[in-house]
Amino acid sequence: MKYCPDCGSSNIEFKIPADDNLKRHICADCSVIHYTNPNMVVGALCIKDNKILMAKRNIHPRKGYWTLPAGFMENAETLQAGALRETFEETMSEAEVKMPYTMFSLPHINQIHFFFLADLLDDNYGPTSESMEVKLFDESEIPWDELAFPTVKKTLEYYIQDKKDNNFSFREEDITIW
Amino acid sequence: MKYCPDCGSSNIEFKIPADDNLKRHICADCSVIHYTNPNMVVGALCIKDNKILMAKRNIHPRKGYWTLPAGFMENAETLQAGALRETFEETMSEAEVKMPYTMFSLPHINQIHFFFLADLLDDNYGPTSESMEVKLFDESEIPWDELAFPTVKKTLEYYIQDKKDNNFSFREEDITIW
Repeated sequence: MKYCPDCGSSNIEFKIPADDNLKRHICADCSVIHYTNPNMVVGALCIKDNKILMAKRNIHPRKGYWTLPAGFMENAETLQAGALRETFEETMSEAEVKMPYTMFSLPHINQIHFFFLADLLDDNYGPTSESMEVKLFDESEIPWDELAFPTVKKTLEYYIQDKKDNNFSFREEDITIW
Repeated sequence: MKYCPDCGSSNIEFKIPADDNLKRHICADCSVIHYTNPNMVVGALCIKDNKILMAKRNIHPRKGYWTLPAGFMENAETLQAGALRETFEETMSEAEVKMPYTMFSLPHINQIHFFFLADLLDDNYGPTSESMEVKLFDESEIPWDELAFPTVKKTLEYYIQDKKDNNFSFREEDITIW
């Protein structure tokens, strides 16, 4: 932050405010403290006929790699609404949330990733501006070497394990290596 | 946002960018799009000898009302680290996370609240700059009419229910009325 979004001053200090213990951007002219906090990414592992819905990214980062539909949660939105919106934006398809499934803290990039397990409701999926290809994968066909993000890989691994055990449970963990 | 944090211009437009569908603050001079997203609040329901650790807020909002220790997650932090940091900041006590417990979407205030179930590790709790009083409550003593936030009330209700059933499970839901 070079300029105060409230008053336009360039007199921005990066220091610990009174009664705090972390450095923040503070405007030395209008005294406003500008906080920044982690962002929530929401997505869905959508299943139809035992197959997994995946999208090949048409946007950076990781363009050309396969992902589960997911993206930044918006203001004024619930987790479930965000996951279903991202699913539609990236795959053109409608889904129904079954349960919260995986949640990852990614402190090195100030993000939290959260995936629901969901049912894909129809076969009308297809590419969008964000996805160059959309496909239902059988477990044996998952492109493990072409996955976009570690949280996608982990979520797929848990799904395969849980399906084998016939016991699906929510998991919350940290991923600190990208 | 009145001024661009990147270039200081006051020529800020609030409109839908290309390839997007929501209005954002866009600098008409340097073209940077400034996104805002929901904030994550993390906390803990800490138990010791079947009693629940609560803190009477010494800060706004809801000063003077009782809460479970919780606060805004910081950058470069995991969910668990955030919950334990807030527990320490508001109660002076050390705790150990047992399991993820409740998660609430609050779309009307652009927040997500997430509580862990935790064990309080010692009896050295006490007031801090953020809490005027810290106390272990028996279930029968919970100050239901003096709770700070609906997500605290819901989490306490689920805990009492789950303890009765001897079956603790993670819950994810929406709260749209404040």
